[in-house]
Amino acid sequence: MNPQRFHQQIEFLAEIDKVKRIDRNTVLMDASRKENDAEHSWHMAVAVMLLLEYFDEKALNLGKVFKMVLLHDIVEIDAGDVFAYGNADYSEKAEREKKAAKRIFGLLPQEQCKEFLSIWNEYEECVSGEAKFAQALDSFMPILHNYRTKGLQWRKLGVTSDKVLARNRCYPQSRP
Amino acid sequence: MNPQRFHQQIEFLAEIDKVKRIDRNTVLMDASRKENDAEHSWHMAVAVMLLLEYFDEKALNLGKVFKMVLLHDIVEIDAGDVFAYGNADYSEKAEREKKAAKRIFGLLPQEQCKEFLSIWNEYEECVSGEAKFAQALDSFMPILHNYRTKGLQWRKLGVTSDKVLARNRCYPQSRP
Repeated sequence: MNPQRFHQQIEFLAEIDKVKRIDRNTVLMDASRKENDAEHSWHMAVAVMLLLEYFDEKALNLGKVFKMVLLHDIVEIDAGDVFAYGNADYSEKAEREKKAAKRIFGLLPQEQCKEFLSIWNEYEECVSGEAKFAQALDSFMPILHNYRTKGLQWRKLGVTSDKVLARNRCYPQSRP
Repeated sequence: MNPQRFHQQIEFLAEIDKVKRIDRNTVLMDASRKENDAEHSWHMAVAVMLLLEYFDEKALNLGKVFKMVLLHDIVEIDAGDVFAYGNADYSEKAEREKKAAKRIFGLLPQEQCKEFLSIWNEYEECVSGEAKFAQALDSFMPILHNYRTKGLQWRKLGVTSDKVLARNRCYPQSRP
């Protein structure tokens, strides 16, 4: 074992503990509190197992889908969570997230940094089947949460069915 | 799409939202609050990606390891979290968890229930390489949390280094 390499891996594991403290604009299904990014990523990863059959299962690399889902929100440690149905400046968001990816994945040993960055970029570009499936789930999960809580959070934030339909009509595609 | 099948899958996804409310005896690395099972499972799954290289990487089915890690604590919805360094009755724990697995995975369509149960059983039996790797990470993560918080939670709960070493000396093996 290379001690410096192991040290870098442990520093990364410690850094991403912060993902557990990034609150989202979604509440738990019992409406007790907001969900955070770590919980969301875990829930999405289980949804991968359940719902893979509705996609072209044999064409997808399952391991890669899991990796995308697990890593997709880590950049929000620096860049923050941007509400999908808000009025954020998405060009600025993309820049912030790229910078965050470089810093956070940069904590890793070089070739792991390269792998993680490549998986995250592929997710963001939303061209491959794996990325389309993962992004579809990323949009589906808040819909399910709002459905189960009778739209609690979306009512509060003024998210109308028009907005939800418009965002998800032509899906999956590259998106802000 | 079979609507009844889809309905079962959605009910399962809603049921496991409860995993986000199962607190563990580990605190976040900033010591701000207890960690929950969903956050722990996500963190473990990222650790899989990072630390796979220290195991016999080519002999392991990565997809299966991810599935084990993602599912391993779902039974705690019914059975509760049992502290690894406590004085629980582990035979009773095993029975409670088996019953929980039957009920919770039983919400799924039949063959998915069978798959999830089989993955969970394989993890619990801790014989396959995948299960040994996943269980080693399950023990490693609280060690890392306690290391980063200067033993905060373990001091509070009277977990001595003797206990930690004894539990992890001969690892991985089938364990309570």
